[in-house]
Amino acid sequence: MNDPRVLSFRPTAEQYAWTFGGAAPVATISPGTVLELWTEDCFAGRVRGKDDLVSQVCEFPFLNPQTGPFYVEGAQPGDTLAVHFVSIEPAREWAASSTVPLFGALTATHLTATLQDPLPEVVWIWDLDRSAGLCRFTARDSAVVADLPMNPMHGTVGVAPANLEVRSALVPDAFGGNMDTPEMRAGVTCYLGVNVAGGLLSIGDGHARQGEGETCGVAVECAMNTVLVVDLLKGVRTPWPRLESDTHIMSTGSVRPLEDAFRIAQLDLVQWVSACCGLSPLDAYQFVSQAVEAPLANVVDTNYTSVAKLRKDWLPGAGRGAVMRGMHHHLREVARSYLA
Amino acid sequence: MNDPRVLSFRPTAEQYAWTFGGAAPVATISPGTVLELWTEDCFAGRVRGKDDLVSQVCEFPFLNPQTGPFYVEGAQPGDTLAVHFVSIEPAREWAASSTVPLFGALTATHLTATLQDPLPEVVWIWDLDRSAGLCRFTARDSAVVADLPMNPMHGTVGVAPANLEVRSALVPDAFGGNMDTPEMRAGVTCYLGVNVAGGLLSIGDGHARQGEGETCGVAVECAMNTVLVVDLLKGVRTPWPRLESDTHIMSTGSVRPLEDAFRIAQLDLVQWVSACCGLSPLDAYQFVSQAVEAPLANVVDTNYTSVAKLRKDWLPGAGRGAVMRGMHHHLREVARSYLA
Amino acid sequence: MNDPRVLSFRPTAEQYAWTFGGAAPVATISPGTVLELWTEDCFAGRVRGKDDLVSQVCEFPFLNPQTGPFYVEGAQPGDTLAVHFVSIEPAREWAASSTVPLFGALTATHLTATLQDPLPEVVWIWDLDRSAGLCRFTARDSAVVADLPMNPMHGTVGVAPANLEVRSALVPDAFGGNMDTPEMRAGVTCYLGVNVAGGLLSIGDGHARQGEGETCGVAVECAMNTVLVVDLLKGVRTPWPRLESDTHIMSTGSVRPLEDAFRIAQLDLVQWVSACCGLSPLDAYQFVSQAVEAPLANVVDTNYTSVAKLRKDWLPGAGRGAVMRGMHHHLREVARSYLA
Amino acid sequence: MNDPRVLSFRPTAEQYAWTFGGAAPVATISPGTVLELWTEDCFAGRVRGKDDLVSQVCEFPFLNPQTGPFYVEGAQPGDTLAVHFVSIEPAREWAASSTVPLFGALTATHLTATLQDPLPEVVWIWDLDRSAGLCRFTARDSAVVADLPMNPMHGTVGVAPANLEVRSALVPDAFGGNMDTPEMRAGVTCYLGVNVAGGLLSIGDGHARQGEGETCGVAVECAMNTVLVVDLLKGVRTPWPRLESDTHIMSTGSVRPLEDAFRIAQLDLVQWVSACCGLSPLDAYQFVSQAVEAPLANVVDTNYTSVAKLRKDWLPGAGRGAVMRGMHHHLREVARSYLA
Repeated sequence: MNDPRVLSFRPTAEQYAWTFGGAAPVATISPGTVLELWTEDCFAGRVRGKDDLVSQVCEFPFLNPQTGPFYVEGAQPGDTLAVHFVSIEPAREWAASSTVPLFGALTATHLTATLQDPLPEVVWIWDLDRSAGLCRFTARDSAVVADLPMNPMHGTVGVAPANLEVRSALVPDAFGGNMDTPEMRAGVTCYLGVNVAGGLLSIGDGHARQGEGETCGVAVECAMNTVLVVDLLKGVRTPWPRLESDTHIMSTGSVRPLEDAFRIAQLDLVQWVSACCGLSPLDAYQFVSQAVEAPLANVVDTNYTSVAKLRKDWLPGAGRGAVMRGMHHHLREVARSYLA
Repeated sequence: MNDPRVLSFRPTAEQYAWTFGGAAPVATISPGTVLELWTEDCFAGRVRGKDDLVSQVCEFPFLNPQTGPFYVEGAQPGDTLAVHFVSIEPAREWAASSTVPLFGALTATHLTATLQDPLPEVVWIWDLDRSAGLCRFTARDSAVVADLPMNPMHGTVGVAPANLEVRSALVPDAFGGNMDTPEMRAGVTCYLGVNVAGGLLSIGDGHARQGEGETCGVAVECAMNTVLVVDLLKGVRTPWPRLESDTHIMSTGSVRPLEDAFRIAQLDLVQWVSACCGLSPLDAYQFVSQAVEAPLANVVDTNYTSVAKLRKDWLPGAGRGAVMRGMHHHLREVARSYLA
Repeated sequence: MNDPRVLSFRPTAEQYAWTFGGAAPVATISPGTVLELWTEDCFAGRVRGKDDLVSQVCEFPFLNPQTGPFYVEGAQPGDTLAVHFVSIEPAREWAASSTVPLFGALTATHLTATLQDPLPEVVWIWDLDRSAGLCRFTARDSAVVADLPMNPMHGTVGVAPANLEVRSALVPDAFGGNMDTPEMRAGVTCYLGVNVAGGLLSIGDGHARQGEGETCGVAVECAMNTVLVVDLLKGVRTPWPRLESDTHIMSTGSVRPLEDAFRIAQLDLVQWVSACCGLSPLDAYQFVSQAVEAPLANVVDTNYTSVAKLRKDWLPGAGRGAVMRGMHHHLREVARSYLA
Repeated sequence: MNDPRVLSFRPTAEQYAWTFGGAAPVATISPGTVLELWTEDCFAGRVRGKDDLVSQVCEFPFLNPQTGPFYVEGAQPGDTLAVHFVSIEPAREWAASSTVPLFGALTATHLTATLQDPLPEVVWIWDLDRSAGLCRFTARDSAVVADLPMNPMHGTVGVAPANLEVRSALVPDAFGGNMDTPEMRAGVTCYLGVNVAGGLLSIGDGHARQGEGETCGVAVECAMNTVLVVDLLKGVRTPWPRLESDTHIMSTGSVRPLEDAFRIAQLDLVQWVSACCGLSPLDAYQFVSQAVEAPLANVVDTNYTSVAKLRKDWLPGAGRGAVMRGMHHHLREVARSYLA
């Protein structure tokens, strides 16, 4: 294997994208390129201490800055981008979380609208011990502290949408975007259907860690140094984002209500398994029903995101080898070559 | 520790309960009693081969037979039953699954009503290799077979409901019932709030294994030999069913739409952690948001069930020890004593 | 036409039913009987002034008392009860409404659970001018008063449920119950499928008027003197409650989320029109889609209720005459005979 | 009153807009301008007979062409556009409707995803008798015909969205768009909050008539000759589209699930009534709860739309006069002046 091409890119303040679609590419890359990227946190770096309230220091709609978009040579509607995360490393020694008025799962919101007062707006600064791989929670109303393992991930990975649309970087949908799944971690390949020429890939919204569902609406948010490999599957359609790790294949769905997000992800996985393993749709329905894991991603964003997850070593028949033409295995090799 | 009292009970055909509430107790037990129970499968044992279609061999509403109810001495509204599963063992060498017309997540149903035709009704018989701990899927439309690990569980565990109600054994709600979570396995303690004198505990709906969400509506259904210990927490209110394993505490919520089930489970866990760990509600909201796992249970029953799950060794402060007065640890000891 | 049989019944405090199913009949009636009934308000008459807070004066679960149940001779599962409202007259010179903590559409609830504080609990007493047909709103926080037309109706009309269940009188479902639709007014016939021998009809929850959706969770609640005729359609199945007025046929659906309630009501109306008018299902789908009205009933109860409503004089072909064997017209005649 | 300025505009095939936002203005108008517009039907005029299947003759995403956008001089974020419909007249002697595969309320869709087959794709051509004001349904599978009154309306009215977004013309949201409410008829004023300079108003999607909910997903679709007056309310924020007729004020909400659309519309109406009539929020909550009508608009589009509707002559105190600074009355006068 030849040395992969490598592009390093750290956006200036003016170079961030705030939308999927509608932003000019920051660079053109060929399939197989390794990207070394800096991503700013979802607050555009403006929440730096517990007195930095989101409603005061942030400037709507300039939230969730994206690094990109990257134009992938040869990518056309009907193809699929493969985005393999080689490493995701917090770029600062701290991260921030917050309640945001009328946002989150355990509060009324602008969409689940009530007459009640919003919850108080509170910021938590988490200390990151990057060598130990820990992030430290410090309670605001008591002396309690608690360490949780880091589990770095990207909340937002996406391409330009279909249907001539431009969507806020806060939205998850069929184009990917703000799905907020902890499964989007190093070692994972994300497959995104291409809707416009070049695909126009962007990433952002790094989380030192996040619970499933992102209940309060905000994770342990931090800037990231992230390395990824971008490749192209010609002639492969991917209606909803898929993920693949060494151990699992995963489908996602993003919509409201949450049961519809569940349906989309599960149907996509049933169809994926059916195609890979030579099972009839009903046989795949039965098999997936007994084998699937269904961790939630977010239940707070404009659309809710559900994940359907299946162990690859449980796939019957030729299933394992047939997944996305072996792309994940290939990108693993590219990553090893890069890291060597 | 003294030897626990033990009651063995295998219902006759006439002794099953088909509801939570509204059925006379089959026995009265004192707190601490070990129950050795037989439970029939959700089909009342009538689906025994691939030609036994549910719509033909089953007799509505006589589905999901429950073993019980058991009247627990001293249990009063405002108390909590603790139900510890010592062992759950498939009672036959096979299990059955099926599509059921207008039931399941990837079909129109009587509640998500459409003009489309139902999916075909198909039965799958799974072979259980109990010594190897495997259940074997055999495709109906191809030669594919696949082994999955057994993970025996009870889909249905509940008490009599509040508000003078009697509910079908197919329903999950605040009284427990047909929650269909794979977390209900051996080694786990389930906490159920008592609504009527004696609590009136029943269990049923054994699954050799089940995916999260129970997508097609039916798990790998089998009769079970199950041992459990039943104990009583006086003066402890439990609004929605909680579970505790050696490693996790879990809250559940069962309602539609699915985001509301998520909200109930997450709010209950936030309040549980707040009370156990001396965190303010907002601090607990932040902590749980970053630490929680959110596996789905079912997205097919009358109500959908969501689980919120937290590692006990992540609980800060005195949290770990304070959970339900140490009941799970105590019941683990009772189980060891019984098994010895 | 012979004089109809008439039964007058005003329950004693002990005679109210608090559930659908599970209550012994207060009387047996033959089809065609006129019932002259007293119904108490949903607060069991305990909210009589603005200082009578529901949470203090009411005793859960003894809310929404029902007058009945009535055992209808000859009614068997597979039949339909026809309940025609001859007159619905407020029995007092005032009515009460209230916010109830964690209940209503514009607040978090026990099911749409949040960490926010409940809204304040406030009672409004409405003055009823029965001769003028007005109910007077008196603001609590200002000097504003406003008169609205009375539009008396019953929030709760139902029979014993299927599936061996007993349901709280606060629940709307396929058996009817607490549907809270303003369409349930004098001059209307309600059709309810029979699930158990005798049907076991109860009514309650009189409203001097109610907005569509019952947004705050509580209408202008009052005791009622109500006259109705009860008849029986042998061999007619009615899966979800239907209504018929002189001008409209209506289907209802009660479930969560609200779009599923909409789907149930619309599908039932499509099937009803298809059967009545000799249209294929797809033709009826098209016709109903362009002709239907879709007023909401309640978006606050355990299940949400949606109504699908079609003008009878728009029904093509023989449609008009074929509705429920002409039962509404017949009961109109009985009512005239009674009133004469 | 001076003669109003009048602009007539009929787009060429290349001039239609397919999105809200992202399209260059076709003209700049000053507040108070009368627009005489032609709008093409939602099929871009390609469904002209019963053999013109949408999936074959239409070219995605070129559906629902919009006439506009119009840049309104002086309109800035924080202002409100007032759009008064003077007349809406079908431009052809026929209109078309259709089932569309995996679209509609009584079918699985791409978002409510199932394994079932789609419903058949069927086109209905409706004959319009414009002098009699009738549209004629002709069944496809039988000889049945039926006349329904015309009730011409625009399904789609909107401005450029906030948050840097560009949305498909098929989407309803806070910017208006494809709300599909039959309330958008001649004589009505629609208020839309301005998100970008000039507002960028477009309209389209004429319906000769439509049922509430637009159940099959498609109304009686036709090209329209429409006259409207556009005016500007400086310094008035309108978070969600509002409507005003001679008799009613109306709020709308567009989101999924449907109960959230209901909440948005109801909360907006409560706040509107509170502000207009000097009622406290809780008093307005009570008043609206008893007085509101809640007709559904659509339960099929990307977002579902709910309407909350209140009679103006029921508004207490100074309410009636205070609505939107009397703009509707003023535009009625402009319309009279134009028509004279």
